[in-house]
Amino acid sequence: MTYCLAMQLDEGLLFLADTRTNAGVDDVGVVRKLHVLVAAPDRVLVLASAGNLGTTQEVLDRLGRDPTRLTSAAQLFEVALCVGQVGQEVVAEHKQALGNADATVSFILGGQIGDDPPDLLRIYPEGNYVRASEDRPFLQIGETKYGKFILELGAAARLPLAGAAKVAVTSMMSTARENVAVGPPYDLAVYRRDSFRLDQHRIDADDPFLAEAAAIWERHLLAAIEELPPVELRSDG
Amino acid sequence: MTYCLAMQLDEGLLFLADTRTNAGVDDVGVVRKLHVLVAAPDRVLVLASAGNLGTTQEVLDRLGRDPTRLTSAAQLFEVALCVGQVGQEVVAEHKQALGNADATVSFILGGQIGDDPPDLLRIYPEGNYVRASEDRPFLQIGETKYGKFILELGAAARLPLAGAAKVAVTSMMSTARENVAVGPPYDLAVYRRDSFRLDQHRIDADDPFLAEAAAIWERHLLAAIEELPPVELRSDG
Repeated sequence: MTYCLAMQLDEGLLFLADTRTNAGVDDVGVVRKLHVLVAAPDRVLVLASAGNLGTTQEVLDRLGRDPTRLTSAAQLFEVALCVGQVGQEVVAEHKQALGNADATVSFILGGQIGDDPPDLLRIYPEGNYVRASEDRPFLQIGETKYGKFILELGAAARLPLAGAAKVAVTSMMSTARENVAVGPPYDLAVYRRDSFRLDQHRIDADDPFLAEAAAIWERHLLAAIEELPPVELRSDG
Repeated sequence: MTYCLAMQLDEGLLFLADTRTNAGVDDVGVVRKLHVLVAAPDRVLVLASAGNLGTTQEVLDRLGRDPTRLTSAAQLFEVALCVGQVGQEVVAEHKQALGNADATVSFILGGQIGDDPPDLLRIYPEGNYVRASEDRPFLQIGETKYGKFILELGAAARLPLAGAAKVAVTSMMSTARENVAVGPPYDLAVYRRDSFRLDQHRIDADDPFLAEAAAIWERHLLAAIEELPPVELRSDG
């Protein structure tokens, strides 16, 4: 499993990805799932991946071998279609040999090209995409359920970057807590609108932030439970 | 979809089930998923179901036609095996006609028989079961992910019945918020140890508790976000 998320903010874009990979519970490792495709004066392209690791890495290798498709695209959706197409090519190449094993990959692609505003797209294994929007200014891939509510809450509150980053890490922690196939270190990337540079930070498993945040959450959740009105426990009528 | 949960408490057992049923998004209805199999001076048996509604109802009808299997069982696990077996019989009966449609059902069975302590079992479609325990004193069936964390938190805090009921309803609300195939009214049942009677209460969609609880949760979650230490947003090194 995997959990990656990305948020569209007034200030720009935020990406967060876990790094846990496994080929069974007896073969667990750390691998980067957040990739900078291009960081140039006219464009920044970031790709997060969830799914078959072999497919992901071959997609990245193929894109890197012929980078003009990335550096010459006029709009982000063209990059998304290119990534989607390469993904399908890689899956097709190995499909027969892999048999029933799932070789597909989902991606989140975000960034900015030239004068276009920052854009955020989710690329499906079928090669098509959907865009984040004002109504749903975040995207998720992988294990999406555990961390979804807090993203919705943060989006509804229109939290600025500093608050949104806390929401993102909380969403990740909630997911890692419930699914051992998601885990630290976590890779965070922040793209500030029109900056054409990316800030990247890795949050390690022993980062004091994680323990402190878990304690703060537990305290507030128990306080919320405490404050709820009593539930009627006797029979109706 | 469906969401049912049950909790093992020092005071006894608590059950909560949603009532939404659908045969597609254009055919949505309300159906009870929390059933009292037996309420007698020597035993109380409660069954919650998730899965094919036709199978569920035929299982209940078959059990009702021959209730001595329920009223004469000496221990709860015998009832679980009986329910599991009847479930498999019903599925086998309709399997060919249903083709690829999933006719299976999962159950939570809870109650007390005679001098045995209250017991709580999850019955799988295959007819076997697992028991709630001190380490994991709750069971879930259906859409289990969204509401799991708060159950774990409540269990870790060893909340007594009144608090546990708030946790249960919160777990249900979290699930219904994210999956429209789960929804009110919610059926709550409380069995107090050695009482051999069941309290049952239905929480309707317009119950003021639900709106008040949602507001309290949102306020506490945003306060928790606010209190979290800042996330490092600049590049490492």
